[in-house]
Amino acid sequence: MSDYYSQENHGPFHLHSLGDFTLTSGQVLKDAQIAYATQGTLNAAKDNAVLVTTWYTGTTKIMEQIYIGAGHALDPSKYFIILANQLGSGLSTSPSNSAAQGGAAFPAVSMGDDVNAQHRLVTEAFGLDHLALVFGGSMGAGQALEWACRYPGFAQRVAALAGVGTTRPHAVVIGKIVQDILTSAPGFNGGAYAAADMAVPLRQHALYWTNLAWCPDFLDRKGWEPLGHASLDAFLTDFMTGYFAPMDANNLLAQVSKWQRADVGGIAGGDAKAAYAKVKSKVLLMPISSDQIFPVTTCIAEAALIPGARLTVIEGKAGHLGLFAIEPDYMPQINAALSGLLGEQV
Amino acid sequence: MSDYYSQENHGPFHLHSLGDFTLTSGQVLKDAQIAYATQGTLNAAKDNAVLVTTWYTGTTKIMEQIYIGAGHALDPSKYFIILANQLGSGLSTSPSNSAAQGGAAFPAVSMGDDVNAQHRLVTEAFGLDHLALVFGGSMGAGQALEWACRYPGFAQRVAALAGVGTTRPHAVVIGKIVQDILTSAPGFNGGAYAAADMAVPLRQHALYWTNLAWCPDFLDRKGWEPLGHASLDAFLTDFMTGYFAPMDANNLLAQVSKWQRADVGGIAGGDAKAAYAKVKSKVLLMPISSDQIFPVTTCIAEAALIPGARLTVIEGKAGHLGLFAIEPDYMPQINAALSGLLGEQV
Repeated sequence: MSDYYSQENHGPFHLHSLGDFTLTSGQVLKDAQIAYATQGTLNAAKDNAVLVTTWYTGTTKIMEQIYIGAGHALDPSKYFIILANQLGSGLSTSPSNSAAQGGAAFPAVSMGDDVNAQHRLVTEAFGLDHLALVFGGSMGAGQALEWACRYPGFAQRVAALAGVGTTRPHAVVIGKIVQDILTSAPGFNGGAYAAADMAVPLRQHALYWTNLAWCPDFLDRKGWEPLGHASLDAFLTDFMTGYFAPMDANNLLAQVSKWQRADVGGIAGGDAKAAYAKVKSKVLLMPISSDQIFPVTTCIAEAALIPGARLTVIEGKAGHLGLFAIEPDYMPQINAALSGLLGEQV
Repeated sequence: MSDYYSQENHGPFHLHSLGDFTLTSGQVLKDAQIAYATQGTLNAAKDNAVLVTTWYTGTTKIMEQIYIGAGHALDPSKYFIILANQLGSGLSTSPSNSAAQGGAAFPAVSMGDDVNAQHRLVTEAFGLDHLALVFGGSMGAGQALEWACRYPGFAQRVAALAGVGTTRPHAVVIGKIVQDILTSAPGFNGGAYAAADMAVPLRQHALYWTNLAWCPDFLDRKGWEPLGHASLDAFLTDFMTGYFAPMDANNLLAQVSKWQRADVGGIAGGDAKAAYAKVKSKVLLMPISSDQIFPVTTCIAEAALIPGARLTVIEGKAGHLGLFAIEPDYMPQINAALSGLLGEQV
């Protein structure tokens, strides 16, 4: 298990045991655990709980750092905020930490599994019967929308930032590139690699995400300079490779495969519209205007499937990784959108 | 030398010898030849000549197939059309065919070198002192704009489709991904590879271009179906890998490095605006609306540097590879734009 996924780097986080956890596929994830963090205090009425999910390669730590705090919509002085790491993240049960099903033996997990695990967490650990909000970005947005379908009404509100609930071919291709880069590495060895042998493919993965997740204008205007990097090469080496290279390839593969198969319609015979017909939550989609992974048009098409869903475009000039809140006018837009949603009566 | 670059596949083409050709870098490309094709007849006044350039991975063959013919603006019954393959294309002198400087020994070539070679071709082989039009797409657009700066007024008109004259960081990153994928292959061997050892990186290159060159909506609406492919996997295997996999990696590296270093400002101390101040051609930029490689905003920024330049957005729903004219309303827009430009008095 890589040190990267340690309490020191990503904690403090706690583990909630799910035991032998039956997946939507019918397979069993043995001795499963969901890693989570909390901020704030659950009130007596148990009506101030918010669940925050995680994106591809992210953990709850970055969600806490960016989206949670005094002055933000998700203010721990008002809300009891539960942040849950997705399966395969490296913190919850993952290829990198599963004793029984590590590496390539890790079964394929789905966003439905994440949501079922999160439901177990919030009901078993905190005795909740509803959530004021489920909020997530990118793959975390997929989980939030899966919540709306899988447990209708449990989440009173769902906010899906820069993501959708059903993966379309464009994102399948993105996943195939990641899969090909990682699994074709000479030392991959069916997933039983030595970490050092994955340095080249992980560097390529970082380069690819540079192109994918920052918009052309961000790169062309040297968007790395305000982030403190003197040159493109420094940005690629220190920031992008620095961020992605310590990750575990099998974890990335578990997540990317999950992303490729994401489909809220899984609970309705593959019919996303039928699944969304069950939704009782107030649903808000929040695409980022310059996002090339989840373009605004893709999110508009998704919103059209969801009864009553609304859409607020977050104006951003950085692309998908505007999610990192590097632009000064980003969090004000996020906070306004989430505060507005949280302020609505249900 | 790979069979792929044969007369059978890409001809008929002719070779014009440049002898030992001094590059803008000062290095010498030995026994250089520029491969070209012609259509139509040069008139007595020698004022109906059009030069067509080539894009990354493309040869004159695809330009002939798509853009030249009766009913098109570039009609051989009206114009004498010279189509010139870029250095490194596999047809003109390239890593794959240079006897003296093959493979990794091939010197870095620039778009300035292409334009100098093309100038040699049109003056030496055809005795021209001007061209009615230089037209190219993508990297070919870069060559067309380089013409406008390097030989002011020689081209009366310049039409740059889906491309710019100076590479910005976004495209540098694209090149770095291609370079890393190809050169990190276990069998790359500093460029002295066996072709079979490059199958995996060339497949990855094809996958990457699938993501890069088709827009999200093209993939999400199963844009491959009207092209006759039954599934995404069939499209990836038969069309994308089928197109890219037979190419020579060293040729791709020569081209991608040229693209990264493209800079019309090379003739003016690196100052693109100063280089464009020399322009006497009527310049038309034609970005494709859904292009993610040369976004409309990038082309607008380029046009702002060029005195008198105009810009016509080509509406397309396929992304950069709309260049392949797969949409029924594509060529009518191209033909209208080029006919309009050609019809203007100079």
